[in-house]
Amino acid sequence: MKVIVLGGDGFCGWPTSLHLSRRGHDVVIVDNLSRRKIDVELEVESLTPIRPISERLRAWRELTGREIRFVNFSVDQHYHRLLSLIRDEKPDAIIHFAEQRAAPYSMKSSWHKRYTVSNNLNATNNVLAAIVESGLDVHLVHLGTMGVYGYGTAGMQIPEGYLKVKVEGEKGHYVEQEILYPANPGSIYHMTKTQDQLFFYYYNKNDGVKITDLHQGIVWGTQTEETELDERLINRFDYDGDYGTVLNRFLMQAAIGYPLTVHGTGGQTRAFIHIKDTCRCIELALNNPPQRGERVNILNQMTETHKLRDLAAMVSKLTGTPVEHVRNPRNEAEENDLHVANDRFLHLGLEPITLQEGLLKEVQDIARQYADRCDRSKIPCVSLWRRRDETAEAPDAVAPSRPDAAPERGNGSIPVGRHRTIQ
Amino acid sequence: MKVIVLGGDGFCGWPTSLHLSRRGHDVVIVDNLSRRKIDVELEVESLTPIRPISERLRAWRELTGREIRFVNFSVDQHYHRLLSLIRDEKPDAIIHFAEQRAAPYSMKSSWHKRYTVSNNLNATNNVLAAIVESGLDVHLVHLGTMGVYGYGTAGMQIPEGYLKVKVEGEKGHYVEQEILYPANPGSIYHMTKTQDQLFFYYYNKNDGVKITDLHQGIVWGTQTEETELDERLINRFDYDGDYGTVLNRFLMQAAIGYPLTVHGTGGQTRAFIHIKDTCRCIELALNNPPQRGERVNILNQMTETHKLRDLAAMVSKLTGTPVEHVRNPRNEAEENDLHVANDRFLHLGLEPITLQEGLLKEVQDIARQYADRCDRSKIPCVSLWRRRDETAEAPDAVAPSRPDAAPERGNGSIPVGRHRTIQ
Ligand SMILES: NC(=O)c1ccc[n+]([C@@H]2O[C@H](COP(=O)([O-])OP(=O)(O)OC[C@H]3O[C@@H](n4cnc5c(N)ncnc54)[C@H](O)[C@@H]3O)[C@@H](O)[C@H]2O)c1
Ligand SMILES: NC(=O)c1ccc[n+]([C@@H]2O[C@H](COP(=O)([O-])OP(=O)(O)OC[C@H]3O[C@@H](n4cnc5c(N)ncnc54)[C@H](O)[C@@H]3O)[C@@H](O)[C@H]2O)c1
Repeated sequence: MKVIVLGGDGFCGWPTSLHLSRRGHDVVIVDNLSRRKIDVELEVESLTPIRPISERLRAWRELTGREIRFVNFSVDQHYHRLLSLIRDEKPDAIIHFAEQRAAPYSMKSSWHKRYTVSNNLNATNNVLAAIVESGLDVHLVHLGTMGVYGYGTAGMQIPEGYLKVKVEGEKGHYVEQEILYPANPGSIYHMTKTQDQLFFYYYNKNDGVKITDLHQGIVWGTQTEETELDERLINRFDYDGDYGTVLNRFLMQAAIGYPLTVHGTGGQTRAFIHIKDTCRCIELALNNPPQRGERVNILNQMTETHKLRDLAAMVSKLTGTPVEHVRNPRNEAEENDLHVANDRFLHLGLEPITLQEGLLKEVQDIARQYADRCDRSKIPCVSLWRRRDETAEAPDAVAPSRPDAAPERGNGSIPVGRHRTIQ
Repeated sequence: MKVIVLGGDGFCGWPTSLHLSRRGHDVVIVDNLSRRKIDVELEVESLTPIRPISERLRAWRELTGREIRFVNFSVDQHYHRLLSLIRDEKPDAIIHFAEQRAAPYSMKSSWHKRYTVSNNLNATNNVLAAIVESGLDVHLVHLGTMGVYGYGTAGMQIPEGYLKVKVEGEKGHYVEQEILYPANPGSIYHMTKTQDQLFFYYYNKNDGVKITDLHQGIVWGTQTEETELDERLINRFDYDGDYGTVLNRFLMQAAIGYPLTVHGTGGQTRAFIHIKDTCRCIELALNNPPQRGERVNILNQMTETHKLRDLAAMVSKLTGTPVEHVRNPRNEAEENDLHVANDRFLHLGLEPITLQEGLLKEVQDIARQYADRCDRSKIPCVSLWRRRDETAEAPDAVAPSRPDAAPERGNGSIPVGRHRTIQ
């Protein structure tokens, strides 16, 4: 299969590209390296020593004899570059990872809100318009997020994309309908993903574009069989307050002897998936495209759910690091349950890697191994979801301490609401 | 009240600005004149001889002694210009008309799709981000469209923005919920309006922005009491295939003795409102803002519905012009009903102007009066919703004739599907 991977230099895109190349697919990566440039802006680095894309690709060729091509342009801005690439390559599928993907980053300032909206929405619209204009029957596989559902569905199981509802019709008769699950985004980033869904809905309905939208949980784990082959192929590991997802931050905190900081009560439940399973799911999605004329194919790409405090407890148990509760910067309920249907990937044959079995490897091979590269001042989340005056519960919670003033191990835990660091 | 009108040089924005200024409100218009520049691109002109914005404002000052200020910038691009304006003016409300508003224009080419998406979504996001960043409690009034609902709700009444549904919970119990009406956009333009709704939903929920979203029907009529005061204040009248809404095209066709071209069977039902009622509704919306903390306030801003063939029959009866059925370029059902709730504006005191009473004035004062300014080659719609091969039903329907080859009066009507003009 010929596949164009948009955002193929990123955390999910890089191992997916290698996974597919290894299995004989012809892969072309498009990436504008914006993610690496954001590291420059934030003055952070991947914990793992990721190599420049040209070195990565050279190493891959050396080791496997396989060629992955790379083109550097911005999908949201260079429409005609994208269109010619599609026309020249005639890909069977395009995998679209090319979006700004961190919720805290999207909330940092008006500039970050606007960048996220413009980058993500124009990128998605450009891909769709280019597929239509090319006249080719390309299968688009997009990475969405579980966050489009919101986390507030008291008790009910989250279905895969569509929700059956009953609507009152004339004379009080109820009519059953299946609708796109009502969106309830929790950040600007998540909002763009709910808007992406409307692009997909429309281009599928109007132009018959074949689309698979993968509503992915939080990806954990760093390496895959391919990225492990050589250190030059190593995948990125983000632990900073913006891009580091919750589990990575716990792992990092444990490795450097910093208490595991849990936001609020830690009663928020999240869905997870290992990076190896991400690669496998995408391969399964490529091999099982929707038929032309079928509606948008939505699958939940996650394998287990955990409350954040339970996750912290797991890492704490493995590493002996204490847990500390701090103020939640996000605007969300402190406690929620999450039941998610993921039958479709299980039926396609996915055999999930569990946190229980994979966590120790992350602690040892990644977090401890590269701990000396960690800049501990970068771990706290400093983005605030709302204006300061509104989030304040206690006057002393309003003044942020300098991020580098984070407590060292042994400071003990400070009760929520009295902690001076806004994290 | 101090009001910033984004898009205040446009068809709805101009009469609204005068309406509010006349009633003592302090109005600042922002417009990048993109609508006038699109006329240059399309090689068309408003049928009515609209004057440059500076002349309009000078005339208004001369006639009424009232000052409306004007600032020229692009809301989607010049965020900091917008933010400083809000900070300096501290408006009570912002009325947001500044979007590309023609469905056929949004479907002309990939470029037009991308322009519409980028202009409309970035404009709306910029206004919202700027209101939040300003820290001011500004009421945002946005013009949405009835088209967000889609036109396919067999028999059920369309509520005002929110839909009550029953969702199956645990153990088969049904739980009642109120959700944003499931979106079903019919064009790229309409799609951006459904995406706007998610911006509103999110910024309202997260930042408490006070928002009124007016789901407007097709606006008909040209003049208001204010624009009629002097020809230099005259409002725009679009009759071309892209911007001319269906009634204007009928009026124009009648005035120049061209048969009234009805797309398909003309069984599509649309919602309508007179431009004077648009101004009144917006004034009512300004005077009845939602409370801080309340959800997005959605009202249906329309006063009557008609099937397109009935509308053609009305114009035909008034003018003696024959009706002709041609291929529908849109991707939609040929026949649909539309029942729309509009109780909220009626409760607020709106007394609608009906088509029955207002149509003759349009025929006489606008269409006939300025008929000599009409470029008849511009009336047909030449945008196609789908690739040519897919919309073709009969081979001879595929080849578009030149737009200027439109038949003169007396050519008689040509049955659907055998007509060579794609309209
Ligand atoms: N990482 C997760 O836990 C997770 C969870 C759910 C969903 N996702 C989704 O998966 C996708 C990939 O996530 P990731 O973690 O690999 O993110 P990432 O930031 O590591 O990778 C995204 C890549 O896309 C590139 N990119 C961004 N905008 C671009 C543009 N306009 N033109 C060209 N290249 C562009 C970046 O340079 C980067 O290399 C995203 O859409 C994300 O929302 C990720
Ligand atoms: N006319 C109708 O029948 C109708 C029906 C339903 C809804 N609406 C909505 O009402 C609003 C106004 O419609 P209209 O008929 O007056 O359209 P219009 O095109 O006549 O007016 C829009 C004005 O906004 C300006 N504008 C557009 N993008 C801008 C930007 N980025 N920055 C600054 N100015 C910008 C244009 O120059 C124009 O003067 C639109 O949002 C439209 O979708 C109109």
